[in-house]
Amino acid sequence: MKNQAIVEQLDHESRLQDDDHHSIRLWLRLLTCSNLIEARLRSRLREEFGITLPRFDFLAQLERAPDGLTMGELSKRMMVSGGNISGIATQLEREGLIDRTPVVGNRRMFCVRLTTEGRAQFKRMAARHEQWVVEMLGALSSRDVDNMMSGLKKVKQRLATDEG
Amino acid sequence: MKNQAIVEQLDHESRLQDDDHHSIRLWLRLLTCSNLIEARLRSRLREEFGITLPRFDFLAQLERAPDGLTMGELSKRMMVSGGNISGIATQLEREGLIDRTPVVGNRRMFCVRLTTEGRAQFKRMAARHEQWVVEMLGALSSRDVDNMMSGLKKVKQRLATDEG
Repeated sequence: MKNQAIVEQLDHESRLQDDDHHSIRLWLRLLTCSNLIEARLRSRLREEFGITLPRFDFLAQLERAPDGLTMGELSKRMMVSGGNISGIATQLEREGLIDRTPVVGNRRMFCVRLTTEGRAQFKRMAARHEQWVVEMLGALSSRDVDNMMSGLKKVKQRLATDEG
Repeated sequence: MKNQAIVEQLDHESRLQDDDHHSIRLWLRLLTCSNLIEARLRSRLREEFGITLPRFDFLAQLERAPDGLTMGELSKRMMVSGGNISGIATQLEREGLIDRTPVVGNRRMFCVRLTTEGRAQFKRMAARHEQWVVEMLGALSSRDVDNMMSGLKKVKQRLATDEG
């Protein structure tokens, strides 16, 4: 019931007019699903691990970059907004999940890396996060997944090559 | 080049590990596309009309609700975050694009509606917005669109019925 209500609130297609272009319908459905999944992940991470989505995302970026990232790179790579990057870094460093070391040749730049403890904690959270995503997308057949991957790939390519 | 750089920055699939589940890949691709399209719309609305995405979204919700919405309803329906709802309403009212009237029987609740001028201005912006979305999704065949609509529908239904 709670989920049903949230989906109805966030579902804007129901208010579309008949003459809206099918691209607009697809874009709103894409945005609705993306917002719904993100909201669900946000609340589960908070309930189960007491972590915010931006902090989880911050750790996820580091996990994918074994050589570490500068704060600037981290800031650009964050998938979700709402986080103050240096505030997050200060807190995660205090908790021993990341460390920051000066970049050789540029003492004002810092390279951020996961600590061993940070990597271990992230791994536990990432496993649950993956389970949730698998469940949420569980209604899709392999064929559906392939179709959507290929459609979204075309969209991404167009966005990369398009002028303006 | 600029678009290519933005897509590379925001494209997290390239950092995926081989053993990541295909659901995670699909979710990250979905999120990447959704973020990219939203960022593009945000910057075009600003350049062409000097309007923020939350303000555009606010007007779009009203356009789909000819009987008007209360501030609470508007707040729940907003598709994009980052806007201070009452700040947006105050500004749009000052510009003559919306009006606010007390709800009968509840003097502390306000019903918000587009003015004639607001409707006309929104219509012009919405037409351009639609063109941009059509262009961005223009690499998709009708079959791709159908496949994605049907996949996303399954996702939405699962999110609505799933327990927890």
